[in-house]
Amino acid sequence: MPAAAAKVMPMTEQKPSKQAVEAVVAGLNARFGNRVVTSLAVREQHANTTTWLANQPPDVVVFPHSTEEVQDIVKLCAEHGVPVIPFGTGTSLEGHVNAPLGGVSVDFRDMNKVLEVHAQDLDCVVQPGVTRKQLNDYLRDQGLFFPIDPGADASIGGMTATRASGTNAVRYGTMKDNVISVKAVLANGEVITTARRAKKSSAGYDLTRLFIGSEGTLGVITEITLKLHGIPEAISSAVCPFESIQGACDATIMTIQSGIPVARIELLDVVQVRASNAYSKLTLKETPHLFLEFHGTEASVAEQAERFAEIAAECGGGPSEWTTKPEERTKLWQARHDSYWSMLQLRPGAKGFATDVCVPISRLAECVLETCKDIEEYKLVAPIVGHVGDGNFHVGVMIDMNDPAEVKNAKTFIERLAKRAIAMDGTCTGEHGVGQGKIKYLEAEHGRTALNAMTAIKQALDPQNLMNPGKILPSSLTAE
Amino acid sequence: MPAAAAKVMPMTEQKPSKQAVEAVVAGLNARFGNRVVTSLAVREQHANTTTWLANQPPDVVVFPHSTEEVQDIVKLCAEHGVPVIPFGTGTSLEGHVNAPLGGVSVDFRDMNKVLEVHAQDLDCVVQPGVTRKQLNDYLRDQGLFFPIDPGADASIGGMTATRASGTNAVRYGTMKDNVISVKAVLANGEVITTARRAKKSSAGYDLTRLFIGSEGTLGVITEITLKLHGIPEAISSAVCPFESIQGACDATIMTIQSGIPVARIELLDVVQVRASNAYSKLTLKETPHLFLEFHGTEASVAEQAERFAEIAAECGGGPSEWTTKPEERTKLWQARHDSYWSMLQLRPGAKGFATDVCVPISRLAECVLETCKDIEEYKLVAPIVGHVGDGNFHVGVMIDMNDPAEVKNAKTFIERLAKRAIAMDGTCTGEHGVGQGKIKYLEAEHGRTALNAMTAIKQALDPQNLMNPGKILPSSLTAE
Repeated sequence: MPAAAAKVMPMTEQKPSKQAVEAVVAGLNARFGNRVVTSLAVREQHANTTTWLANQPPDVVVFPHSTEEVQDIVKLCAEHGVPVIPFGTGTSLEGHVNAPLGGVSVDFRDMNKVLEVHAQDLDCVVQPGVTRKQLNDYLRDQGLFFPIDPGADASIGGMTATRASGTNAVRYGTMKDNVISVKAVLANGEVITTARRAKKSSAGYDLTRLFIGSEGTLGVITEITLKLHGIPEAISSAVCPFESIQGACDATIMTIQSGIPVARIELLDVVQVRASNAYSKLTLKETPHLFLEFHGTEASVAEQAERFAEIAAECGGGPSEWTTKPEERTKLWQARHDSYWSMLQLRPGAKGFATDVCVPISRLAECVLETCKDIEEYKLVAPIVGHVGDGNFHVGVMIDMNDPAEVKNAKTFIERLAKRAIAMDGTCTGEHGVGQGKIKYLEAEHGRTALNAMTAIKQALDPQNLMNPGKILPSSLTAE
Repeated sequence: MPAAAAKVMPMTEQKPSKQAVEAVVAGLNARFGNRVVTSLAVREQHANTTTWLANQPPDVVVFPHSTEEVQDIVKLCAEHGVPVIPFGTGTSLEGHVNAPLGGVSVDFRDMNKVLEVHAQDLDCVVQPGVTRKQLNDYLRDQGLFFPIDPGADASIGGMTATRASGTNAVRYGTMKDNVISVKAVLANGEVITTARRAKKSSAGYDLTRLFIGSEGTLGVITEITLKLHGIPEAISSAVCPFESIQGACDATIMTIQSGIPVARIELLDVVQVRASNAYSKLTLKETPHLFLEFHGTEASVAEQAERFAEIAAECGGGPSEWTTKPEERTKLWQARHDSYWSMLQLRPGAKGFATDVCVPISRLAECVLETCKDIEEYKLVAPIVGHVGDGNFHVGVMIDMNDPAEVKNAKTFIERLAKRAIAMDGTCTGEHGVGQGKIKYLEAEHGRTALNAMTAIKQALDPQNLMNPGKILPSSLTAE
């Protein structure tokens, strides 16, 4: 190794002492009074909700009201070497909010204001606790919307931290493309703003994109500037049945490749169709489906729909049922967003192992079909839904947590899926993030050198490893 | 300061010893033979071409053929503490390729292959020396194109390193949005690939975006995976005269705000119109103009053009002259891309101080008009052209370098422009990059804490400060 080799030291991963934690709790109590909670029930609620990973509660939960208050929390934690774990709505799926070393959960419940809307610039500034539905309710009167929509009504802070996307990403991009700037409190308590409001800039390192997807490991995001979009003049939604999964995937691939600017194109396999029929009172034929949406002018939406219909017919799909009525569209997409809850009803009492991968679209059909074969072989109840226009799909494996063989089986299946996606030049997670659950796949995906570079950056910005430790980077901590 | 404060040490900025440089040159000669050049003429060509900054030549220029050869060069330089400066086509404007400490210019002239085209996935993999025109010539037969087009026929490597954009960015985004992954040689000689080919991923820190715009300061980019787009079915270009700059800016703002998916919308002020008429043999009326282009289906292009015409009429513009003929479109956009050369003809013998800023679009008219007033007050020959759909515009100040008062005047004007843009919540550079020329504005734009974070990242990945030293980050080196 030459002299210039970046030194990558293993990070500190030690629980703080009891005294350190007590000092932090006392400091928080003195500063924040009844906005500090230490009851086990509340701490457990802040550790894990929708994941299968073991619950690792923080030592204390605090509810700040401002960036300055977050600075005070972080400085107090830095002084005593106690971890800081940001918390939005707790709807992440890979153990992002678990506290394997204990520490302080910083809940953004009360930092839920839309601070500025610059309608002329198509942007806005929000606090991290604002949820996506809240934001869109706020914007609707001005003819604007924010497109990113993970299934849950997640917080903008959490969505930024996990580089979330959702059904509209195929047209509007992910959080990476829709965050202009973040304000964040660094590990040393100082505040940075990563960019100004100009639509583009070449002025220095892209700290904005570095924070998007950093899952709280580089600092605590306290403000986000978002791109907005005009509500399209015309919106048309459709459900389109297919004879086979292969046909639905092929139609998706052809739609994307022919440049139709589809706003949403979502796959539901037969198991998911059954689940959604039951949970969301739909009446879909029990066959694979695409849910679609087109945005534009009246003329362009009609043109897009016509072109899609031709493609669908070629792939053994259709006829589509179209609607432009807002209430019917809302019902359709609510059903799509409720897929996680509908899956759980397939097997009451089961836990959902929700996982996602993303592959180049040319490999989509192959990846989905091999996964279907695995589901059969492993005898799993596991619906597939996906943002297939991006090559991204989800599998929800319904597991009886009291049956160790079943749990082991599900883990093997998920591992095979992640490795399959990586082998196809894809990623072990298209949108859920790494958290604790997917750390083990990152070396296969990025290689040791890239992981070392990430670790070097983490150490440069958080030398004490207090910012959400045990997430993203190679770690001795685990919740499995 | 709490204990966790990131330590930001001043970076080493010392010229390597004569012995160190000689050892590197000897090592390069032994390894690369006649692909190593030390003549002053060639070294000066590699330091600066289109900037007003003083020429600071490297000690030696080398022409590698592969990533492995770049690794060998970097390892050799690391061993002897000698800087490494990547070189594409030398068309950058802010001194990016200057070598204030000397060192090795790594010229990618011979690494100019398109390595893979995945037409089905709409992506390709190229070496850094491929130029944008070369790539588009290569792709045309497959019905694909790469949209990013800075004025010069720049290399993809350089465009990636400076986060370039151009006329199509208003619709297709910048390099930030169109690079999927880079392969780069780090300061320690190791190679990373920053991402796989999936369209999106939430798997760890966004090293791709960190390298885009890092201007060679974090490593040497040796391969780039790019997003491609289908050549639109219908393309229609127009020139639209306006009574005033204000009217042209207002029309731009309304076009963007009303969601017309314009592919290009470019402002030329009267001075630029005169220059382009003379240099590119156009016959435009001597009044401010917008150059436009719409991409889509026949129907959607017609619809967009109609909507724009209504807006233009409201703003004292029009009628537009439209064309769909490829040869006429090519002539128009060639004229736009040649604006830098046309400016130089306005004042033969003058040097062009080409600068750019970018502001939120609501502030565009105000920023342009205040700049026009400054041009008048400072008595400058300085045409304005701009990618105004993004709020981004350029001023080319034509200066007699033998007149120190004039040079000082131009620098004051540029400083006022950068600060004006920053004060409007914009950036001191929308697409040219920082290089040496704009380092002095970064603290005003980003604040000290963000600059410290950038410096910490730089030190983590390049502790010896050998990767293109003296660029982007606060530096004691200067070429002014």
